[in-house]
Amino acid sequence: MALREPSLGPCFGIKGGAAGGGYAQVLPMEKINLHFTGDFHAVTSAHNTISALLDNYIYQHRKDGFSLREIFWKRVLDVNDRALRNVVTGLRGDGVVSETGFDITPASELMAILCLATSEEDLQRRIENIVLGITADGKLFKVKDLGVAGAITVLMRDALMPNLVQTTENTPAFIHGGPFANIAHGCSSVLATKMAMTFSDYVVTEAGFGADLGAEKFFDIKCRKTGLQPRLVVIVATTQGLKMHGGVALEHIKEPNAKGLTEGLKNLNRHIRNMQGFGQPVVVTLNRHDTDVEEEIDIVRKNCEDLGVGFAVNDAFLRGGEGAVELAQIVADTIERQRPLPIRFTYKEADQLEDKIEKVCKGIYGASAVEYSKTAKKKLEALRATFTDEDGVIAHYPVCIAKTQFSFSADSSLYGSPEGFTIRIRDVILNCGSEMIVAIAGDMLRMPGLPKSPQAERITIVNGEIEGLS
Amino acid sequence: MALREPSLGPCFGIKGGAAGGGYAQVLPMEKINLHFTGDFHAVTSAHNTISALLDNYIYQHRKDGFSLREIFWKRVLDVNDRALRNVVTGLRGDGVVSETGFDITPASELMAILCLATSEEDLQRRIENIVLGITADGKLFKVKDLGVAGAITVLMRDALMPNLVQTTENTPAFIHGGPFANIAHGCSSVLATKMAMTFSDYVVTEAGFGADLGAEKFFDIKCRKTGLQPRLVVIVATTQGLKMHGGVALEHIKEPNAKGLTEGLKNLNRHIRNMQGFGQPVVVTLNRHDTDVEEEIDIVRKNCEDLGVGFAVNDAFLRGGEGAVELAQIVADTIERQRPLPIRFTYKEADQLEDKIEKVCKGIYGASAVEYSKTAKKKLEALRATFTDEDGVIAHYPVCIAKTQFSFSADSSLYGSPEGFTIRIRDVILNCGSEMIVAIAGDMLRMPGLPKSPQAERITIVNGEIEGLS
Amino acid sequence: MALREPSLGPCFGIKGGAAGGGYAQVLPMEKINLHFTGDFHAVTSAHNTISALLDNYIYQHRKDGFSLREIFWKRVLDVNDRALRNVVTGLRGDGVVSETGFDITPASELMAILCLATSEEDLQRRIENIVLGITADGKLFKVKDLGVAGAITVLMRDALMPNLVQTTENTPAFIHGGPFANIAHGCSSVLATKMAMTFSDYVVTEAGFGADLGAEKFFDIKCRKTGLQPRLVVIVATTQGLKMHGGVALEHIKEPNAKGLTEGLKNLNRHIRNMQGFGQPVVVTLNRHDTDVEEEIDIVRKNCEDLGVGFAVNDAFLRGGEGAVELAQIVADTIERQRPLPIRFTYKEADQLEDKIEKVCKGIYGASAVEYSKTAKKKLEALRATFTDEDGVIAHYPVCIAKTQFSFSADSSLYGSPEGFTIRIRDVILNCGSEMIVAIAGDMLRMPGLPKSPQAERITIVNGEIEGLS
Amino acid sequence: MALREPSLGPCFGIKGGAAGGGYAQVLPMEKINLHFTGDFHAVTSAHNTISALLDNYIYQHRKDGFSLREIFWKRVLDVNDRALRNVVTGLRGDGVVSETGFDITPASELMAILCLATSEEDLQRRIENIVLGITADGKLFKVKDLGVAGAITVLMRDALMPNLVQTTENTPAFIHGGPFANIAHGCSSVLATKMAMTFSDYVVTEAGFGADLGAEKFFDIKCRKTGLQPRLVVIVATTQGLKMHGGVALEHIKEPNAKGLTEGLKNLNRHIRNMQGFGQPVVVTLNRHDTDVEEEIDIVRKNCEDLGVGFAVNDAFLRGGEGAVELAQIVADTIERQRPLPIRFTYKEADQLEDKIEKVCKGIYGASAVEYSKTAKKKLEALRATFTDEDGVIAHYPVCIAKTQFSFSADSSLYGSPEGFTIRIRDVILNCGSEMIVAIAGDMLRMPGLPKSPQAERITIVNGEIEGLS
Repeated sequence: MALREPSLGPCFGIKGGAAGGGYAQVLPMEKINLHFTGDFHAVTSAHNTISALLDNYIYQHRKDGFSLREIFWKRVLDVNDRALRNVVTGLRGDGVVSETGFDITPASELMAILCLATSEEDLQRRIENIVLGITADGKLFKVKDLGVAGAITVLMRDALMPNLVQTTENTPAFIHGGPFANIAHGCSSVLATKMAMTFSDYVVTEAGFGADLGAEKFFDIKCRKTGLQPRLVVIVATTQGLKMHGGVALEHIKEPNAKGLTEGLKNLNRHIRNMQGFGQPVVVTLNRHDTDVEEEIDIVRKNCEDLGVGFAVNDAFLRGGEGAVELAQIVADTIERQRPLPIRFTYKEADQLEDKIEKVCKGIYGASAVEYSKTAKKKLEALRATFTDEDGVIAHYPVCIAKTQFSFSADSSLYGSPEGFTIRIRDVILNCGSEMIVAIAGDMLRMPGLPKSPQAERITIVNGEIEGLS
Repeated sequence: MALREPSLGPCFGIKGGAAGGGYAQVLPMEKINLHFTGDFHAVTSAHNTISALLDNYIYQHRKDGFSLREIFWKRVLDVNDRALRNVVTGLRGDGVVSETGFDITPASELMAILCLATSEEDLQRRIENIVLGITADGKLFKVKDLGVAGAITVLMRDALMPNLVQTTENTPAFIHGGPFANIAHGCSSVLATKMAMTFSDYVVTEAGFGADLGAEKFFDIKCRKTGLQPRLVVIVATTQGLKMHGGVALEHIKEPNAKGLTEGLKNLNRHIRNMQGFGQPVVVTLNRHDTDVEEEIDIVRKNCEDLGVGFAVNDAFLRGGEGAVELAQIVADTIERQRPLPIRFTYKEADQLEDKIEKVCKGIYGASAVEYSKTAKKKLEALRATFTDEDGVIAHYPVCIAKTQFSFSADSSLYGSPEGFTIRIRDVILNCGSEMIVAIAGDMLRMPGLPKSPQAERITIVNGEIEGLS
Repeated sequence: MALREPSLGPCFGIKGGAAGGGYAQVLPMEKINLHFTGDFHAVTSAHNTISALLDNYIYQHRKDGFSLREIFWKRVLDVNDRALRNVVTGLRGDGVVSETGFDITPASELMAILCLATSEEDLQRRIENIVLGITADGKLFKVKDLGVAGAITVLMRDALMPNLVQTTENTPAFIHGGPFANIAHGCSSVLATKMAMTFSDYVVTEAGFGADLGAEKFFDIKCRKTGLQPRLVVIVATTQGLKMHGGVALEHIKEPNAKGLTEGLKNLNRHIRNMQGFGQPVVVTLNRHDTDVEEEIDIVRKNCEDLGVGFAVNDAFLRGGEGAVELAQIVADTIERQRPLPIRFTYKEADQLEDKIEKVCKGIYGASAVEYSKTAKKKLEALRATFTDEDGVIAHYPVCIAKTQFSFSADSSLYGSPEGFTIRIRDVILNCGSEMIVAIAGDMLRMPGLPKSPQAERITIVNGEIEGLS
Repeated sequence: MALREPSLGPCFGIKGGAAGGGYAQVLPMEKINLHFTGDFHAVTSAHNTISALLDNYIYQHRKDGFSLREIFWKRVLDVNDRALRNVVTGLRGDGVVSETGFDITPASELMAILCLATSEEDLQRRIENIVLGITADGKLFKVKDLGVAGAITVLMRDALMPNLVQTTENTPAFIHGGPFANIAHGCSSVLATKMAMTFSDYVVTEAGFGADLGAEKFFDIKCRKTGLQPRLVVIVATTQGLKMHGGVALEHIKEPNAKGLTEGLKNLNRHIRNMQGFGQPVVVTLNRHDTDVEEEIDIVRKNCEDLGVGFAVNDAFLRGGEGAVELAQIVADTIERQRPLPIRFTYKEADQLEDKIEKVCKGIYGASAVEYSKTAKKKLEALRATFTDEDGVIAHYPVCIAKTQFSFSADSSLYGSPEGFTIRIRDVILNCGSEMIVAIAGDMLRMPGLPKSPQAERITIVNGEIEGLS
């Protein structure tokens, strides 16, 4: 996404502290991939502190007759640990026995809150509103009811500050927040985006994991809720990815295969149509790899010309900033040539929840039907019956669908441009802090597992340099 | 503990990174109490990454016939969460079902390793040696067998660097590592201590949570294993603490009560005898509070004079460094007056494990007997049978007893100078990374719980300042 | 089902013992509904003894390197207890931690074995063949491998003997075995059927819970495997049931409603077509209730005449045996009029497993598609890959589908004659003792739960008579 | 125990039914060891039905705000299954998650109730009073509150009838109830005892598993609560058992060893003193084995003569009734020679609960001290605080201590006549149906496990005869 805004009022201070945020050094790649500035740790700590306070509250007040009929709040860890997906806690009389589980930290509602909060006060307000469960008499039980939102805000305070880093060519960039778009809303923090817009003429932000996931949520959640007005969408493609979507086997995608690539354009073109559907100009760029052949690049270029969509090869990986000049020029020209176009959202705030889900599934993913598990149905009904009358606010929440990034469908093996499939919504989660309804599609898990040979086996320190980190 | 060493060879570089360690700013109290430089987060991440890799290994290799007969490695979180003490993981077919639990991060073996490692290579060597469980055919299964020690070292790398801070009077201090002495070995890092000794004439280090816990482990573990030679022990007391140990009710310990204070001297004097037992000079200091009366201070002074032990009031809380000058003078004079005295350890490396435990329990705590739970007995037997012949190394490990800090005994309500009690060893844990045998005494838990009204309820941000953090 | 066979060779002895089977007293209804002759208790004991022996074997042999990669065998209780559906056993070091559960006793494979065994030797052979799990190296682990089939046979020995009771008009009847047709194969014991055929000219046997469930399994499993040759099928209907299937609300089904009843005939007629599909003559009988009106009975009669199917009202509930004479006459006449017709099975023994399931789902239930859960798919694949080469026997097993009795579909709320639905197979279980493959359709549970106001609240003893038992 | 009572009023009817009790056939040994008359099955069913109804009640009423602060009622199975000792139930949303467990059926409170109930009405009254847990507001929650005592009584009704069998010499005997004395109160049913007293001049009843367990409970519970007046105690010994208690290794106890046997008399003599302490005449009998030598028998005889206690060899195993004539004569003569002597109970009904436990532990077992686990202490306190004012009844309950039968102490390896030991009470259970307080001593488990080579491996059917059943 490229945004441009001449001024944004008061500038946010740059964080001078050490932990839970940090600034300004040329942070090497390994720092970013390891602990970075500790923001993920802060979210993990804050999330699990709420968990401990909640369990403690139930344990300490059960003799006063307090109990929760249902508990929604789980725990998080920033580790891929399948054994933590489903756990029983509180055994041997220590606490109250519960069947619960761990999500990965990027799936924490606090991570979404970090990315959507517009100030420290807004952070605390959202933390107070987090729904933890349902009381015996059917009321929402929130962090506010625990009386600890201040303490949790304190734990998150430094993490709220955007992290300013620079590229190897000394271009400034913010890295802030990590709600992956397959399991969460997929956009970096509002504060970082707005801060960048204060300092620059053009701001590029990523909304990743497939435009069906990241870009949809960027428009329908982040822009809708903050009033951000993008000027243009850049869709990034590779010849290899296109061939994969065109049915070429993975071990052959580096070989020339014009037929396969042409077949794969169906996938790209659906993304183009989707983005145009939001009412925005679209530019396609092809990340060049050394195995790319001109003939295939021309096929993609021709395809874009036929659709009336801008196109440029991006050679930044091989040639640095120099390699992206053509792309930058097309982007700037397109933006300057026209006035901002209003976003056409996928659904209206006033739509019924099921309608919102259906409009995304059919309109963006291309599903022909949506079905709901028993659990999801029950949750939807409860949402409607009990919770929507809270000032009518909940009814207006956008939906955030967790879905595999490997396919338009919920089946990660369906490459290309699948049609006629059904999306099965397995679970529905009410997030009153991040102010959205999360719907889990298909087998999507919010806590990944490790492969038989995990990357950790290949990480070593050789002569003081870390190797194997990717 | 006060140490002095003219030179220590090559100076360790000061850490320039941000997360997982940090340097040099005047870190406000709240940073230290919150995320600080992220060392605890790094230990938590590294520990749970091992857990995930271990569970994944078992899960992925069970079809190859691999299984562990017993699993020792648990998980950790730096949150007081009693519901995590005993959990079942791996439910619903995600992983292998296990009954396990979480300890608090300071109880992690990695925390002890962080504090005992003398270099990055030593860190990695110790991580490799961590015992995770016992294979079906009775062998120790270690991190080395997972093949991931490099990756874990990378996660801990920044955390290994000592954190240099300064007092409000700009005196430099290192804060590094947190293996609380009631649940672990209680000493800050060897690297920080040695670095401090390189830069200063005198180094003061804390070995806290009662001299029966911290100081015993400082001598028998940290000094024994690193060759550190302390010059003097300062025992810190307060009139309120002495009155508490003298049987005065908590609500009255701020009132003058010469009789109660005199009775409480039995507790102090046992600590003095214990420290003298290590062969070191002892100085007693009294931290002055504003409710202290001279008469009571004189009783303590007189008691120390009668025992031939140095004494000084420490008024640093009220008057800053100025208030500690008398104490500092006595300490410096005593050190300069005499040559280093060799440490008399509580037990020999070659002693049988039960003898080591008994010598600490009887010689330091004053117990009249030691008994073992069924579990502890079985573990001790297994240790002897299976594991001691690994180069004979394990047999020489020191013991690290986890015990309440509130009493010489394992019963936290037994104040004063209890005698004739039995210490019950509930569990025994083999730590081949930190190279010690941990014995759990009494009801000591390695994961605390929260009180009915937790401190979190009182933490708020008022005009940008955090209040309620203590 | 009505069977006739002039002689059956050697007569089975009548059981003279007391528990685990009993004979010949006029057993009052309450005995049958309570402990009866203890056969269910014997199955429960035998089943759970295998469970205990299996867990003990794993526990005792784990130090020898023994482990099971997967465990299929659960526990049973003859109590409706939803909390036992999913449990974790072996906690606190007592045994090996497992995630498992309890089924209701009628779903035990031992119950099916009891009903299919043709002799004590056959009983023991089948018990030996029960599959308990998969070893680490991918072999089936059976009761035979535990070496305890003899002991289990001893526990089941008395229960194997059919229970002879009599009606209030002193007609003899056997009540033996209870594998409910919604969760198991739904037919009473082969031994009882054959014994009855030895003593009588005509034998009537029930294959209940809807002809789509009970009768299908009677033909495709019981008759196929034992060579039984039925002579005629009686389908039992009620005007109330027909009206329910015709869309009439439950609170109005006792009121006359010709339109609703006519609509409901679609359900009956599908059953008639299904039974005719097995190649057998069909007679329909209507169990008369006191609220029935002649006009509605005539509609059913007319419907049957139009289809060329025999019809009689059964008034036995109101008038005893006398009330069933017309029905008996039609049945006898039809049988005597024609020679036995060979059974046309729904599928062939040699069909692929998925084909067998599909033929039942489409051919009998009327489904338009069958889909499989991830678990079911994996199990089917494992069955094909690993287990079918065991003498080629497993490949020839019939399928036994667990499905709701309330609908032709797997959705218990779809009354009438639903079409175009998909059957989802959730799980697949290999039963090498009862020699069948059990497939679980939809949400079907093999352990029921109790309603908010369970019947137990209404059972009392009044003047020595039990009231409220139904 | 031998009792005599001329008449007992109305005779109880003999049970004519089949299941849940049976009569009068010469029941072979194997029936008694297998399902017998189904009484154990009935207790198992009834117990688990209460469990299911309780869990269902909590599940169905949790939306009405109902919850239990603590749940005491577990489940039972009559199978040795260590994996069921500690389980978690109610997983995956089916019911309410609970940490609970299974005891073996003889430990069921219903088994104790069956043995203590004096009529069907008394049975129902006791079932109503069973305590299931504590409500959120601190009240006892009983079966009565579930409203299902009638249904449970119906399930137990037949089992309440005593089972009349006969010996191979056709002497009648009742076998009824099985609350093993190491885990429960150890006495057969009051109804059977009273029925026997109606029909005979002399009734012999067993109160087994060591006179410290069975006989103590016979006097302090069964006799105290029912007014039974025994006339004489027969203590049964063997030369092998005496040698075992005299320190002879198990593999040598069949060899002559006068010294070991003499040493073992200390064990016998403590039992004699204990029984005399109840104020009753004592006769000792020695069950003769074929390896016994006269010299050793004479040592026992001499020992009894010295103590003024009757003695006779019992040769019934080798010679049938004929072999017990001498013993019978001594018993009858002793009874007829003197008037009934009032029982001297070990403690008074009005004693404090801890005093009752201490009097049994010190007075009967010979302990020098009693200590309580944290759990036991908390339960005792709760009992005193909350529950004793219920009509003052609970305060008068007798105590029933579960303890190993292998030693006077709670350590099953301490043979002979141990002294100076401490009994540790691990748990305390309130049984308001059987009207006693159960205290669990030491490691005593109420659910046994199986050995590495269980007996089931040796049970077979050979030529129609069961072999290996013992």
